[in-house]
Amino acid sequence: MPELRKDAVTGRWVIISTERKKRPSDFRLERPAVIGEQFCPFCSGREQMTPPEVLAFRNGSAPNTAGWDLRVVPNKFPALQVEGTLDRQGEGLFDRMNGIGAHEVIIETPDHQKALAAMSEAEIERVLWAFRERIVDLKRDIRFRYILVFKNHGAAAGATLEHSHSQLIALPIVPDFVREEIEGAKHHFAAKERCVFCDIIRQEVTAGQRVIHENADIVALSPYAPRFPFETWLLPRNHFARFEDTQRQVYESLARMLKTVLMRMNKALESPDYNLIIHNSPFSENQAHDYYHWHVELMPKLARTAGFEWGTGFYINPTSPEEAAQVLRTAKA
Amino acid sequence: MPELRKDAVTGRWVIISTERKKRPSDFRLERPAVIGEQFCPFCSGREQMTPPEVLAFRNGSAPNTAGWDLRVVPNKFPALQVEGTLDRQGEGLFDRMNGIGAHEVIIETPDHQKALAAMSEAEIERVLWAFRERIVDLKRDIRFRYILVFKNHGAAAGATLEHSHSQLIALPIVPDFVREEIEGAKHHFAAKERCVFCDIIRQEVTAGQRVIHENADIVALSPYAPRFPFETWLLPRNHFARFEDTQRQVYESLARMLKTVLMRMNKALESPDYNLIIHNSPFSENQAHDYYHWHVELMPKLARTAGFEWGTGFYINPTSPEEAAQVLRTAKA
Repeated sequence: MPELRKDAVTGRWVIISTERKKRPSDFRLERPAVIGEQFCPFCSGREQMTPPEVLAFRNGSAPNTAGWDLRVVPNKFPALQVEGTLDRQGEGLFDRMNGIGAHEVIIETPDHQKALAAMSEAEIERVLWAFRERIVDLKRDIRFRYILVFKNHGAAAGATLEHSHSQLIALPIVPDFVREEIEGAKHHFAAKERCVFCDIIRQEVTAGQRVIHENADIVALSPYAPRFPFETWLLPRNHFARFEDTQRQVYESLARMLKTVLMRMNKALESPDYNLIIHNSPFSENQAHDYYHWHVELMPKLARTAGFEWGTGFYINPTSPEEAAQVLRTAKA
Repeated sequence: MPELRKDAVTGRWVIISTERKKRPSDFRLERPAVIGEQFCPFCSGREQMTPPEVLAFRNGSAPNTAGWDLRVVPNKFPALQVEGTLDRQGEGLFDRMNGIGAHEVIIETPDHQKALAAMSEAEIERVLWAFRERIVDLKRDIRFRYILVFKNHGAAAGATLEHSHSQLIALPIVPDFVREEIEGAKHHFAAKERCVFCDIIRQEVTAGQRVIHENADIVALSPYAPRFPFETWLLPRNHFARFEDTQRQVYESLARMLKTVLMRMNKALESPDYNLIIHNSPFSENQAHDYYHWHVELMPKLARTAGFEWGTGFYINPTSPEEAAQVLRTAKA
């Protein structure tokens, strides 16, 4: 059974998931090979290779058979287990709980060759609606406090399967980096009675030099203090704390923006691997609608980012956000 | 000029160091090649390839010539610049300051082939004394608040030079991960009037299952909530807030412990690349002697750690600390 453990000094929760070792590649120290088309469990016609689907967009075909546009399935090697009651325990100084959670895979397309950036806007929007539908469903489970939706594209970003997919993990705790962001946003609200993200959007759109692209509902920008070269934030113009509570047309605009930004990154940075994370409000934050503002963070994995920060937890970024925004603003995909 | 910038939401400081691009490898997106013996600027006889030394342990030879045991030189491609006055500025919501700091390289040995684990205990102790001497010297500079001492061993850990070396960066701010640790330790002290690290040592030594090795002054253990497989902490038994204020014999014990633990990791984990970080108190923490406890954190870079946490800022660890401690306890080097 996986376990959640809390560091006694920093309060950081980690998952100790020894179950995952069942996956053969976890026994080796080498980087696991990325699974290509020949053995891909996500391709159409191989539905029996995954656990039964929890959601699918189909045109009348039977569950767990071919004929779908998108499928969501439990992760075959989950970091957390969905069955059981939450059991919080102390161990002297230390705190732990059993590793209750959901770990699901969103198979974004039946087509093995099609990356997210190559999908149509309607296809990308479908992926966003799947995120929303799963969040809404999993939120009803009172054991969970946070749902982390993310995408690892390419081996350098941690993907072990080539076929385009995203993941979500429903957690009984709030991850450290989310807590940090929430505390910062609360702090700003307490001082100013304004949302810090709304303030950032206003200032950045006026200044312009870090804006990559704007459309009706979304602003894409290089943040003022980026950890990584070409780190990019996609922020909805309108203030909503939660991804799942957003207006319908925002998903459409986000899909369009994602396609634009990913295609420009592909052009300017030679199709980099990347991580995409949806920063969303924890369920337990009742006042989140005041101070929090969901958004998407996109981090291309350029080799020159490796090293320093990885070791030290401290970030040295060799590319200024002004330069990154300039490059992505002018990259014609 | 490099710049320090603060994220308006989380308060995290990052260095935007576009100057570093002068290093040819930073223009390319590929992983830079590790520099081997043929072009190594750290080898004996090549002293002119580095900036002039700021410290050296020599037996009578002239500065910046051969005949040394250890040299400390400014980094040729520094992330921060040592000349200038600190200039803090606001830019609307945002905060920045010019990138004042020191970035030095500790060349641990004249011998290109000798890794830290292969050095004698006396040689390792010499490296620790060099750290101490540089910290004591740089602390006198009132512009600095923190000195980060770290070592990247091997390409996977971010090293671009093969020759055994460590680095230090003196900063006008306190890095995020240090602040987090300090806040946690303060919090514990406020509640219990005890040092959280002293409490951890007591509990772990009694329980035993996460202890890797003990000697007179140092306890090596797998922490209760490790982020990475085989993450290892080396804690001095006696409570000292600052590395540089520690009793003389502790450096000797730490050198011995480092050698033991590194040799065991080499044996058990096939000589992994690793990061080593000295967690030390910021200068500005006046009451640090109450609640903080310096220590060393060691993180082998095993490929199976890649991916998830890298993307999400959230840690899933497939190896329990009890298992890791067991493996390292029994690895005979």
